[in-house]
Amino acid sequence: MSKEITNRADDYSQWYNDLVIKGGLADYSAVRGCMVIKPYGFALWENMRDQLDKMFKETGHVNAYFPLFVPKSLFEAEEKNAEGFAKECAVVTHYRLKADPERKGKLMVDPDAKLEEELVVRPTSEAIIWSTYKTWIQSYRDLPILVNQWANVVRWEMRTRLFLRTAEFLWQEGHTAHATKEEAVEETVKMLHVYADFVENYMALPVIKGVKTPNERFAGAEDTYCIEALMQDGKALQAGTSHFLGQNFAKAFDVKFSDKENKLEYVWATSWGVSTRLIGALVMAHSDDDGLILPPRIAPMQVVIVPIYKGAEQKAVIDEKVSVIITALKKAGIRVKYDDNDNARPGWKFAEYEMKGVPVRIAIGPRDIENGVAEVARRDTKEKMSMPLENLPETVASLLDEIQQAMYTKALDYRTGRITKVDSWDEFVTVLNEKGGFVSAHWDGTPETEETIKEKTKATIRCIPLDNAAEDGLCILTGKPSKQRVLFAQAY
Amino acid sequence: MSKEITNRADDYSQWYNDLVIKGGLADYSAVRGCMVIKPYGFALWENMRDQLDKMFKETGHVNAYFPLFVPKSLFEAEEKNAEGFAKECAVVTHYRLKADPERKGKLMVDPDAKLEEELVVRPTSEAIIWSTYKTWIQSYRDLPILVNQWANVVRWEMRTRLFLRTAEFLWQEGHTAHATKEEAVEETVKMLHVYADFVENYMALPVIKGVKTPNERFAGAEDTYCIEALMQDGKALQAGTSHFLGQNFAKAFDVKFSDKENKLEYVWATSWGVSTRLIGALVMAHSDDDGLILPPRIAPMQVVIVPIYKGAEQKAVIDEKVSVIITALKKAGIRVKYDDNDNARPGWKFAEYEMKGVPVRIAIGPRDIENGVAEVARRDTKEKMSMPLENLPETVASLLDEIQQAMYTKALDYRTGRITKVDSWDEFVTVLNEKGGFVSAHWDGTPETEETIKEKTKATIRCIPLDNAAEDGLCILTGKPSKQRVLFAQAY
Repeated sequence: MSKEITNRADDYSQWYNDLVIKGGLADYSAVRGCMVIKPYGFALWENMRDQLDKMFKETGHVNAYFPLFVPKSLFEAEEKNAEGFAKECAVVTHYRLKADPERKGKLMVDPDAKLEEELVVRPTSEAIIWSTYKTWIQSYRDLPILVNQWANVVRWEMRTRLFLRTAEFLWQEGHTAHATKEEAVEETVKMLHVYADFVENYMALPVIKGVKTPNERFAGAEDTYCIEALMQDGKALQAGTSHFLGQNFAKAFDVKFSDKENKLEYVWATSWGVSTRLIGALVMAHSDDDGLILPPRIAPMQVVIVPIYKGAEQKAVIDEKVSVIITALKKAGIRVKYDDNDNARPGWKFAEYEMKGVPVRIAIGPRDIENGVAEVARRDTKEKMSMPLENLPETVASLLDEIQQAMYTKALDYRTGRITKVDSWDEFVTVLNEKGGFVSAHWDGTPETEETIKEKTKATIRCIPLDNAAEDGLCILTGKPSKQRVLFAQAY
Repeated sequence: MSKEITNRADDYSQWYNDLVIKGGLADYSAVRGCMVIKPYGFALWENMRDQLDKMFKETGHVNAYFPLFVPKSLFEAEEKNAEGFAKECAVVTHYRLKADPERKGKLMVDPDAKLEEELVVRPTSEAIIWSTYKTWIQSYRDLPILVNQWANVVRWEMRTRLFLRTAEFLWQEGHTAHATKEEAVEETVKMLHVYADFVENYMALPVIKGVKTPNERFAGAEDTYCIEALMQDGKALQAGTSHFLGQNFAKAFDVKFSDKENKLEYVWATSWGVSTRLIGALVMAHSDDDGLILPPRIAPMQVVIVPIYKGAEQKAVIDEKVSVIITALKKAGIRVKYDDNDNARPGWKFAEYEMKGVPVRIAIGPRDIENGVAEVARRDTKEKMSMPLENLPETVASLLDEIQQAMYTKALDYRTGRITKVDSWDEFVTVLNEKGGFVSAHWDGTPETEETIKEKTKATIRCIPLDNAAEDGLCILTGKPSKQRVLFAQAY
């Protein structure tokens, strides 16, 4: 093995860090809580971003770009939103450094360059965007506005973990403006479905679509919809959120439009986002003790070809054949790399590409060429098979589809086995401690009960599923009547 | 006309602002010096970015992402670089806001949340990236590193102008690491050629490739290569730079590699960048008094179709025909919009799309359909022609190519007429004042003379062209001997 990975069973958290760092996705940086996204990790993010961007555009959205900084007076305009983010804001107070007279060659903040008004580095952009929308919106003809932004945001988290929770992260944030409540709610739900479609069909990760309880809502939202995924340690992870913001931001920034009857009304809003956190979910959902396992549809490399040879003569024969194969694979739209670096042995390379989660590995030697075959290995099942070189693009393409589907099915089976209905407190605690996963249980609907359950078990209500059935029951904690089950879990 | 634009001849600067704002590219924001890039402007940037990104990848580069913040101690490590940017840095000093006890509902910076070390919002990323490369590079096998980053950067400029000079802007910054000086210099020049290729062939804007004098070098570079373009007011604009950084950053961050003989050597570096400033160049180089003129290859909309009709019956006939045309145009890879909004009259729409610089406008009415033709108008020349509906995709595609070429030729002719060789100080001043453009003149090679010329005329040495001929002459200011001419101009 090229690099050791901690076993998942021994230390799940260290296993995750090993995957991210040794798999070449990201690394810590010199800045507290901020990460460096390395080229391999960024190529993965580019594939995810490009697909999401396509889906946003297909649903009528356009991209724009708003300032990184939010003046404090705008930031505080929507009070709930401001309160929700105030505790974790990076604040710019000065606009110049100067030579430090006491330390040669060093700099200090120039006290004469203090800003009149402090600038908050955006933790989210509702405030700066709605202060802009005020100038864009006069009449119903200006609506809807369907804008998305790809950006970096900063939230000064105290405990950070690569991808899952970092002080700076990359994300997209959609911010839409509508003439009616119905249209805004429809948009909120539509984007939730877009997210679910992406995560399930591209990341091969099944999600539960639902609504958050008031306790877990985005600060400033009337309703927060979410998709929740399950990780291999039985913890849930919120993979994306879509917020119906009501008229809260329109009121905070006085954004009104004249409707068809020429009456002035406040505008209705939504916002929705997913971030580089999705990469953390991807890593934790699919990987094993040998490394990452990436779904073919978003893997930076879908196929790697490793030559097996002794001496330059054999190498030349393989090179010639592989060059034809590579051309054919690329023509079929397959992302392929030929690793003929002779500083490393095949075994080392095999381990390296297993670590990196490349879905398909093809090994090819002189005897294979004589026999018109290659050894093809799947990363997900580790299965190896001999495949004819003829029609390799077609067979590899269909193998990639098969792997994509198999990864989804495996994750779905795992999750299906970890949604447990419970009807008593003891059972609730036992399932959380011993089995993990989602626990479907009755709750009396009060924030107090939710809070108490969280204190006792660390489990939160992940969501009320969209397709939830009405069912009379009794709250597992208080025994009070309940009309439906909700999904609890411990979560990232 | 839908919106008035100031005449270029009356007030060039206001003309430019009108184009940017009324053309829908960008607008001022609530944050001093920061702009909002509106959807139409961002779509233009996306087309530019995607093409550049493709060219970077074709030349072997990969993308990554590094932190927004640079701790002050890293920022000051390369002293020249730090000195160059210290005066215009946004500085984060605190990481929390809290409720202001004296103003209900308002927030204040929490004095208890002062950072131990201030963070500079990156004005450029050499420091943070080279502090990271230290951990990536041990041996010659780790080289070269060919990384690019798309990011936002902040430079606290005192006088800002939309796109041309804003406190925050979007850009890409390539940062490469090499084992030898030769390889680093080769990379620096290669990327300059990539930039020139892009600006000339996609933005239809001819550039002069050259090297900066020491006075005009990037802070921390050994050599700065640049491409310089000419605007319609006779001023030059630096459109992109590529820096050979020598071993300056490797020494500042102690980045060494062991070469093939196992000797430790400092790593050689380059960096290169272009920014949203290119959009400013595009606007100023091609537009006229009716609005923007966008080159087809990067225009968000290449073709707009406007129906001319009375009543629903005529409209239905046109809709049916246009739907077929749109499908065919899209199939041919042409970006087309059908504007059948019936809140606006055709004349208003014509003015609107002229303002937005859409290269080709097609107007189509019932009689056109009977005759099997459409009225096609070019934005660049305002020429109108009747074109058969049959084969419209082919004729429009070739018209778009023709427009792209014509725009380049027009800009090249303009520039060719504004490179003036002068051999006396009087002539130098007269040409700068009356004709503008580049002035090719002898210079004695000293920074002092360069500085004096700048003070007297506001003209700077834009570059020493790469293909410069050796020529003996006398400095136009001091009369001292000179071995070559250099290009002076007033510049943005």
